[in-house]
Amino acid sequence: MDSTKRASIYTGKNEEYEASVTSPVNIAVIKYWGKRDSDLILPTNSSLSCTLSQDDLHTKTTIRASRLFEADRLWLNGVEEQVATSKRLSNCIAQARAFRKELETNSQVVETIATKERPLSEWKLHIISENNFPTAAGLASSASGYAALVQALANLFELTLDQTELSKISRLGSGSACRSMFGGFVEWRGGESPSGEDSYAYCVAPQSHWPSMHALVLVVSDDKKGTSSTSGMSTTVNTSTLFAERVKSIVPKRLQKIKEAILSHDFSTFAEITMQDSNQFHAVCMDTYPPIFYMNNTSKAIVHLVHLFNSQLHPETNAPKGIRAAYTFDAGPNAVIYAEEQHIKELVQLISYFFPPAKAQSFRAYFPDAYKIFESSDDHLDISTVCDEQLISDYKKSMVRFDPGSIRRIIHTRIGDGPRAISHTCGLANEIGMPKRAKD
Amino acid sequence: MDSTKRASIYTGKNEEYEASVTSPVNIAVIKYWGKRDSDLILPTNSSLSCTLSQDDLHTKTTIRASRLFEADRLWLNGVEEQVATSKRLSNCIAQARAFRKELETNSQVVETIATKERPLSEWKLHIISENNFPTAAGLASSASGYAALVQALANLFELTLDQTELSKISRLGSGSACRSMFGGFVEWRGGESPSGEDSYAYCVAPQSHWPSMHALVLVVSDDKKGTSSTSGMSTTVNTSTLFAERVKSIVPKRLQKIKEAILSHDFSTFAEITMQDSNQFHAVCMDTYPPIFYMNNTSKAIVHLVHLFNSQLHPETNAPKGIRAAYTFDAGPNAVIYAEEQHIKELVQLISYFFPPAKAQSFRAYFPDAYKIFESSDDHLDISTVCDEQLISDYKKSMVRFDPGSIRRIIHTRIGDGPRAISHTCGLANEIGMPKRAKD
Repeated sequence: MDSTKRASIYTGKNEEYEASVTSPVNIAVIKYWGKRDSDLILPTNSSLSCTLSQDDLHTKTTIRASRLFEADRLWLNGVEEQVATSKRLSNCIAQARAFRKELETNSQVVETIATKERPLSEWKLHIISENNFPTAAGLASSASGYAALVQALANLFELTLDQTELSKISRLGSGSACRSMFGGFVEWRGGESPSGEDSYAYCVAPQSHWPSMHALVLVVSDDKKGTSSTSGMSTTVNTSTLFAERVKSIVPKRLQKIKEAILSHDFSTFAEITMQDSNQFHAVCMDTYPPIFYMNNTSKAIVHLVHLFNSQLHPETNAPKGIRAAYTFDAGPNAVIYAEEQHIKELVQLISYFFPPAKAQSFRAYFPDAYKIFESSDDHLDISTVCDEQLISDYKKSMVRFDPGSIRRIIHTRIGDGPRAISHTCGLANEIGMPKRAKD
Repeated sequence: MDSTKRASIYTGKNEEYEASVTSPVNIAVIKYWGKRDSDLILPTNSSLSCTLSQDDLHTKTTIRASRLFEADRLWLNGVEEQVATSKRLSNCIAQARAFRKELETNSQVVETIATKERPLSEWKLHIISENNFPTAAGLASSASGYAALVQALANLFELTLDQTELSKISRLGSGSACRSMFGGFVEWRGGESPSGEDSYAYCVAPQSHWPSMHALVLVVSDDKKGTSSTSGMSTTVNTSTLFAERVKSIVPKRLQKIKEAILSHDFSTFAEITMQDSNQFHAVCMDTYPPIFYMNNTSKAIVHLVHLFNSQLHPETNAPKGIRAAYTFDAGPNAVIYAEEQHIKELVQLISYFFPPAKAQSFRAYFPDAYKIFESSDDHLDISTVCDEQLISDYKKSMVRFDPGSIRRIIHTRIGDGPRAISHTCGLANEIGMPKRAKD
């Protein structure tokens, strides 16, 4: 038994088990949009994403199993949710239990006194899960959430499945969650089988392959209630007359090209395809009836700024500086910008100039990495300090400054690894397997 | 010689000729976007539009021909423009002159003393043109402008071409101008010939076919400098991977269906196709690289409002009220809403509630038809008077009120007729063939 993956807890005479993990967020560069089977969550096309570092953004999940628990229970960010009413959640748990059961039936597990009495697959679970990013950040938490759930279940049950097999289980919770089962650059093979057996994620290139690849998450203010991605993609499949062409002819070619670009560290091609595929995803949303709009005026201005950045010339030689940044937008107004490390500072200068912090917001609250990036010990670091007028002057010709607070926060991160087991002491459960922190 | 079409003016011993016309704006419901030949302005697909009433929106053009003029000159809204530098303008004039020349060569014209001395096709022209809508209204004026130019040239030169032949000449000025050569519902047949001989407009149904068809032009505030449609459509053709599918498979079917809907007064089908085609045009703009965004947050909220309006239920029976309005957006943030006359009042109530006039703007400046539609003699007619709280309450659940002035003006109009010859006295030239009104 790998003690880092699963802890044994003795509560009086009872032995209980617990597993805690953190799992990363992933941001697609070839977008998943459209299901061919909505129960098994099988997509109309393959997709590809970058896993972002868990050091910055993650879901943490602790699962405690006890013979004494009377029901499966779940707490999400301190609030209890009903397990039974979520078919997707129940599906994931049932699938993991079925695999555990199989091991037990074939005597492939090391039994303890506790599990001999009653097999672990029959114990009830307390699942406690928290995101380290606020829901208000507008980042989809279902991918990291279901990846954490399935990894914690796998560790708790000591399943002998590899990450690709586990990705099929997390896919049942949320399609894009299957990609969060790996670090680095990850493809979700859409597959063709009605059973879903060939619909899984695998690692195209690990985190270590391209360490200079960084990302900026721009959290955009929006007061509009958006369309959920589940209902949105279903309407697109049913009504967009351009959608079939995307799935059939365009995505397969792009996927092949972007994988080659990743493997050869060709940032320019990687970036172009990333931007084109983001735009096309939003194009088929607009071709949906009624149309779906996820990008707002701020999002569109970010697109414009990135294209200006990519068309900059060297002030002396007049030679193009080349494509150095790529935007991508999911089902909301937030942007993720991929860029190599050496361009992050310049990008942050531009972004913070044209989308300045809210009036009462400190620069550090707006951009928590401020002091690191700008190598400053100045307590009063603000836009006027970090913005380079020389750099910005060209952009002013075709960019207007947005109202303060149009971007609420810039999160600086990079490519990261897959789900991590964490020690019991860092888990979210207290001694009796209840949330350490719970909202009233 | 038809005196309503052409006037003879005696200036001392010299006889000059003058023609004045007004021409309508048209708003496409199947969009023209993409050229297969940019010199001859041949489109990648056929398109269909409604001609709007000249009583509300028009270009007025007067052309004076004189043996004494030394050069072709043009004044647009009081400002002189260089004729020679505009290839499109020169093309139209040259083509009309060539047809005149042909008539002269074949002795098909009634010669006067003046034209016998020197054929009219060799006289220089003064062209004076004005739009009755401000450029700031954001309405494309090239369609009505080139239609007026070509109609005035045809009248001045007494060309024996029918409107379809004239539409080919105006097409050389601006593609969509060919559709403004007719009233009612007009198709521009894209054609296939490289010469452009089969690329022309014709009337699908005249103005009188559907008199209850009205339109509201919503002039949306925007501080963004947009992409010109000429450069935008060229980038789309070159970079959008969805565009070919639209041209090849989607537009031909839609065109057929919407013509049937128009001929059978099927508003619901007409409206659905109109909205879907507007959305798809903006979808291929977004699929362009770099992407083109014409619709802003206000435009998108108008789309949402129209869909809410179309999904309204009868308060008593709960039966759907049906599709009663259709939005369409051209290469800018302005909306045109097509609706039958009996729904205009309700639409204006909703629009003016959610997009109220600017703070200092009177309701009449915001909606010049206010007193007619709301049958009021009240001098202080404003939103609070015209808005029906009962009607609006349902919409409030999923609509927020926009900042005052987000829509600057609502122009109420209907389907109109084609270019009209107007009398000399209403023309734009003074006695010596110069603009009556010119800016310094």
